Amino acid sequence: MKITAVRVTPIAFRDPPLLNAAGIHEPYALRSIIEVEAGHAAGPRLVGLGESYGDAPVLAALSAIAPALVGLSIHDLNGLEQIIACELGKMPPAQAGAELAPGSQPSRLLPNCLSAFEVALLDLQAQAAGVPLHDVLGGAVRRQVPFSAYLFFKYARHIEPEEAPDAWGEAVTPEQIVAQARRMIDLHGFSSIKLKAGTLPPAVEIASIEALSKAFPGMPLRIDPNGVWSMETAVDAARKLGPLIEYYEDPVAGQDGMAQLHRETGLPLATNMIVVSFAGLREAVAKNSVQIVLSDHHYWGGLRASQHLAVMCDTFGLGLSMHSNSHLGISLMAMAHLAAATPNLSYACDTHYPWVEEADEVVEGGKVPILGGCVSVGDEPGLGLRLDPERLARAHATFNRIAIRTRDDLGQMRKYDPTFSGARPRY
Amino acid sequence: MKITAVRVTPIAFRDPPLLNAAGIHEPYALRSIIEVEAGHAAGPRLVGLGESYGDAPVLAALSAIAPALVGLSIHDLNGLEQIIACELGKMPPAQAGAELAPGSQPSRLLPNCLSAFEVALLDLQAQAAGVPLHDVLGGAVRRQVPFSAYLFFKYARHIEPEEAPDAWGEAVTPEQIVAQARRMIDLHGFSSIKLKAGTLPPAVEIASIEALSKAFPGMPLRIDPNGVWSMETAVDAARKLGPLIEYYEDPVAGQDGMAQLHRETGLPLATNMIVVSFAGLREAVAKNSVQIVLSDHHYWGGLRASQHLAVMCDTFGLGLSMHSNSHLGISLMAMAHLAAATPNLSYACDTHYPWVEEADEVVEGGKVPILGGCVSVGDEPGLGLRLDPERLARAHATFNRIAIRTRDDLGQMRKYDPTFSGARPRY
Repeated sequence: MKITAVRVTPIAFRDPPLLNAAGIHEPYALRSIIEVEAGHAAGPRLVGLGESYGDAPVLAALSAIAPALVGLSIHDLNGLEQIIACELGKMPPAQAGAELAPGSQPSRLLPNCLSAFEVALLDLQAQAAGVPLHDVLGGAVRRQVPFSAYLFFKYARHIEPEEAPDAWGEAVTPEQIVAQARRMIDLHGFSSIKLKAGTLPPAVEIASIEALSKAFPGMPLRIDPNGVWSMETAVDAARKLGPLIEYYEDPVAGQDGMAQLHRETGLPLATNMIVVSFAGLREAVAKNSVQIVLSDHHYWGGLRASQHLAVMCDTFGLGLSMHSNSHLGISLMAMAHLAAATPNLSYACDTHYPWVEEADEVVEGGKVPILGGCVSVGDEPGLGLRLDPERLARAHATFNRIAIRTRDDLGQMRKYDPTFSGARPRY
Repeated sequence: MKITAVRVTPIAFRDPPLLNAAGIHEPYALRSIIEVEAGHAAGPRLVGLGESYGDAPVLAALSAIAPALVGLSIHDLNGLEQIIACELGKMPPAQAGAELAPGSQPSRLLPNCLSAFEVALLDLQAQAAGVPLHDVLGGAVRRQVPFSAYLFFKYARHIEPEEAPDAWGEAVTPEQIVAQARRMIDLHGFSSIKLKAGTLPPAVEIASIEALSKAFPGMPLRIDPNGVWSMETAVDAARKLGPLIEYYEDPVAGQDGMAQLHRETGLPLATNMIVVSFAGLREAVAKNSVQIVLSDHHYWGGLRASQHLAVMCDTFGLGLSMHSNSHLGISLMAMAHLAAATPNLSYACDTHYPWVEEADEVVEGGKVPILGGCVSVGDEPGLGLRLDPERLARAHATFNRIAIRTRDDLGQMRKYDPTFSGARPRY
């Protein structure tokens, strides 16, 4: 079965003012929705779906690649990679994307674009075979895929007066973080918690973990300062955090810093920053800089590449978790099918999905449910999703209406605080 | 689509008196032919094929597992592994198989059995989708898969007087090895050569490589003493062999020995003996004991596991080649489809297939052609093979007629030379 048409639709959806090490989320997050049509000459057309970054350099690449895919077999993933490499080779060097979206960095364009289309092709393969996506990945070892409650320090509203406040309110104290956790767990039943850190003074962030630990006894907790703590701060924080957390995610920057921190504290360190490619994994193995890798099919080159990563983690004695950027339901279900078919997934996956407004989802039926802390994978063919044309048109109209074309958390933060440096390490 | 029936048929086929480090091949090689039937309730039945070892412990395991697979989805490879682990757990500890057939060692029973059935399930998946097997492995990057001429020192005939001599004649001198190479290359067009060594005095084996180098200028050459050379012999031989060979396969035994040999000689070392599992790969990476891994889906756990291995080799800067035991056409085509879909396969694959007699093949049409040194993969669904019931019955009758139930190259050699020690290292 061959590809007959490919559409890449840029979209935008509302994003709350979530704080992170780079700055603060803008009022809208950008994504691209990929539709790949395929069929036999006389038969019906199938549509495979993908979702990726929506930053300008990625969109330019995806759009340049799309027409070159017409005629490719939906099974030819090696051919897909060759075409993408060829098309990217013709493009001018891309501009850098946001630091916190590894897939939108120019050096990651190839695996990023590969993933965007690979998911759509695997969706098509599964639909053509009449089986769920997890079946073309080797079969589900779990039908309920656990995700963690992903907490953020945040402001009550964006600085832009025309943007309405979200339903979550302010969270800049330990008490407000506990309230945010309660709300998120009430809504979705999560049974582990991740706190995005690296934004408020470390004492507040450590106190927030302590407060979460008291409020949710026995609940697995993680903290992720995104590499902006100094070695001294990270070692110091480890004494308090060590007994309370299941892992310590990117407290300091760089392979050597992480290796040193692990030697000094013995804590299991996780990353989605220093191991974002197989070359990074090789270095991490050599240096013992990381004990848990957060995979992310969007920048590792797709679901098959993520499965290679999983076996590599198993081989080298590394734990496996899953990273998330702001995303919609197509990405969520791709993550869920992958996680369902990954025996050695050792932790609940991250997801920003609870922060998405119901009205902003682009698939039929609105937001994919997260219940009991889990996303279910069923027996519907492929991803089990269909685009809702009206919802997609609305999200595309939002993209056209706004001025954001590349994620810029640093620039956004400077609207609030013109002196904000973005320096690393900051604390 | 669910499995409705599984058949495991033990077979035997004639094998020439090929010399190796363990001793000498017996007059018959044992294999198992796996047929997995699947279908929807009302639809036609498909049959997926697999081929594996035929030693008694493996046959016992495969036969115990077979009935437990009925009802399993053809896509559920993770479920397949769980069932196999469960069934193996119920069995008494197996007896050791031959040293040169890693898959028939008790410690390798799980990946070995997994592979036997996984190939049949992938064949079924591909047939159900109407695509060739290489398509369910990511698509062919090559349609012509190169194999090497696999030369053996050998006697003119087996010691058993009732066994007719083969067509290849004696090969115990460099001149006879060159003649064997010429015959094999004339028949199949190979453009690289592997010499199985570790059996005659090293001076004869080194002289044979020198003679091959003169007779076939520029032809890539490999030598494989199967780990029976001492460090001194291997270092000494490296001086003469270094300029003539593309890699030096298992000259000495063990991870530490191989690491030392590489440090002392700088030659690229290949193995199918010290890296036969992901744990072995991890050790090899830590010790830099190996530069090229010979994969073998039969004992690595199947075609998907072999793809994981391929990406791991790429990640850790290791070359990738492919190992072979005595086998028939089903294994050959599984190897060819895998190799076709493996971008970083860096060397021609090994195969014993030229040593198989035309009448002994069990698939329709007889032996799969090797032309221009290559096996072609086409667009026929799945492996592209069907069993020939008459041929299969004949090969099964041969198995029933002979007494061999576990490969024993050492015992066979002692029929020729009762003083043969099998000591390691031997030279």
